[in-house]
Amino acid sequence: MTSPNLDVVAIGDAIVDVIASCDDSFIAARGLTKGSMQLLTTAEADELYAAMGPARESSGGSAANSMAGLAGLGLDVAFIGQVANDQLGEIFGHDMTSLGVRFETAPLSDGPPTGRCLILVTPDAQRTMNTSPGASHELTPDALDEDMIRSASVTFLEGYLWGPERPRAAMLRAAEIAHGAGRTVAFTLSESLCIPGRREGVRAMIDAGTIDILFGNEDEIRHLTGGSDLNGSIAELERAVKTLVVTKGADGALAVEGGRRVEIAAPAVARIVDTTGAGDLFAAGFLAARCRGRELDACLTAGAACAAEIISHFGARPEKDLKTLVKL
Amino acid sequence: MTSPNLDVVAIGDAIVDVIASCDDSFIAARGLTKGSMQLLTTAEADELYAAMGPARESSGGSAANSMAGLAGLGLDVAFIGQVANDQLGEIFGHDMTSLGVRFETAPLSDGPPTGRCLILVTPDAQRTMNTSPGASHELTPDALDEDMIRSASVTFLEGYLWGPERPRAAMLRAAEIAHGAGRTVAFTLSESLCIPGRREGVRAMIDAGTIDILFGNEDEIRHLTGGSDLNGSIAELERAVKTLVVTKGADGALAVEGGRRVEIAAPAVARIVDTTGAGDLFAAGFLAARCRGRELDACLTAGAACAAEIISHFGARPEKDLKTLVKL
Repeated sequence: MTSPNLDVVAIGDAIVDVIASCDDSFIAARGLTKGSMQLLTTAEADELYAAMGPARESSGGSAANSMAGLAGLGLDVAFIGQVANDQLGEIFGHDMTSLGVRFETAPLSDGPPTGRCLILVTPDAQRTMNTSPGASHELTPDALDEDMIRSASVTFLEGYLWGPERPRAAMLRAAEIAHGAGRTVAFTLSESLCIPGRREGVRAMIDAGTIDILFGNEDEIRHLTGGSDLNGSIAELERAVKTLVVTKGADGALAVEGGRRVEIAAPAVARIVDTTGAGDLFAAGFLAARCRGRELDACLTAGAACAAEIISHFGARPEKDLKTLVKL
Repeated sequence: MTSPNLDVVAIGDAIVDVIASCDDSFIAARGLTKGSMQLLTTAEADELYAAMGPARESSGGSAANSMAGLAGLGLDVAFIGQVANDQLGEIFGHDMTSLGVRFETAPLSDGPPTGRCLILVTPDAQRTMNTSPGASHELTPDALDEDMIRSASVTFLEGYLWGPERPRAAMLRAAEIAHGAGRTVAFTLSESLCIPGRREGVRAMIDAGTIDILFGNEDEIRHLTGGSDLNGSIAELERAVKTLVVTKGADGALAVEGGRRVEIAAPAVARIVDTTGAGDLFAAGFLAARCRGRELDACLTAGAACAAEIISHFGARPEKDLKTLVKL
């Protein structure tokens, strides 16, 4: 086993966020569930976009946001995800590579456009996400750079990509390659479980030993185990993964590893503007500290610091220099 | 003469801003003049974009930003400008119409893509603009809706569009239609004078009585008259226009009308993030108050309040509800 020359490679949605403020009445009138993610067809997305207020655009994608955070913290990272050969795809690619993230997945020249996530931010800073995945769900196992995966300490997989068959196959193949090379596989539930019928497959994959580090928030962890008690859910899942990381919003975060549980409080944030990307940046900080050999509590603290930055402004990509916020 | 049923119609660049933070060293290394605007070819824009950091996108265009501000203040406004039939054009159109701005210029199906402005924001909140105008400079007099112009109290023209022949002809034709209907014509210098050879034409157009309300900052006003003394420049220009409005950044603003000069201080801003759009939103506030029949000092105060909002965040489109900041 050679030593890794990349810290993390991620496989995830390659998406541009389209972020608009709205009132609670807009969410209610359209029957949306505040704080959730739903998948839209192209026609549904066009209709919602037409009804939305003026927006700002910013590259997104759950695992891609995490890679942006890791690159901002100075780690060597790569991203595998599918865009189309269009203007939004160009924007997504620019925003990855300009951060130093290796992003070499060739854009699709035929097929659907680059994916968009229409994000409605209410005055309470909650985000309601409406994703038109477009090209992003056209990712196939052929897009994997196997040598890159073998060379990365961690392969990071995004729950949102679990649904469609080909990206799911790509992620399972990537996990196999990573484990074959003695590397770590991480998975973020990233609200993927709110999609009907997805829970059982994700749970079976986790129970099969595919995942070493599992990230989720309280709701996701409870939903994954079908339980209402967080401690019961944790007890179930800690048997299946080496490291379980649970974020709890304003209540902080906890990690369980080798029977040991560590918990931290959330840092104070002067003004929470938009919670989009909080979980993604938490994962970035955690993985960065982990790759640099830090203790579990330091990993949680680094995650919380990155999450605190991202919720202080619109958009899920860091605006401040993360290296000044998190000393690795 | 019928009474107007539209407050303002603007003719200007239809552009999406691509905004990235950078250090002063990046500006210096590329030989850029901080705080200025330069025109780029497509190849130059591609090269600069590749060198820039990660960006956020937000609809822009000087007069278009002003119309966004006026719509946010509750006025009835329209915008005439040229986009292409592409994703950035769709974003620009959405951001106009979702604000209630009438925007009916058909997108070009052939020719260059929708224009982009690559904006570099330094830690001192100065913005250095690099514009690849694309489809925006393909505007022709045929795109004018003459009835719309006749029906608007004010026709607002953008200096950036003065250069290319067809948009210039469109603006001159619009001024003729507006004056023929007894309406007011406003012009914003919007740094257009930094483009070599443009000063003489703009000055001759103003001296010919084409403009009723002229907006400019101190530097532009001085440059337009070729003078180094602001008071001398003002004295020259107040003979040519009915109303002269001069913004002075942190030093406030002044207006001269009918021999009377009114001056205001700039409001305090807690943290200036990005000065892009300050002049555009000043014009919005001023014109809104003017359309509502306010006194000259109230017009300046409204302009300053809108400018203060826009410089408190990235991007040249308002994030706060302007109606709560400016009571008309």
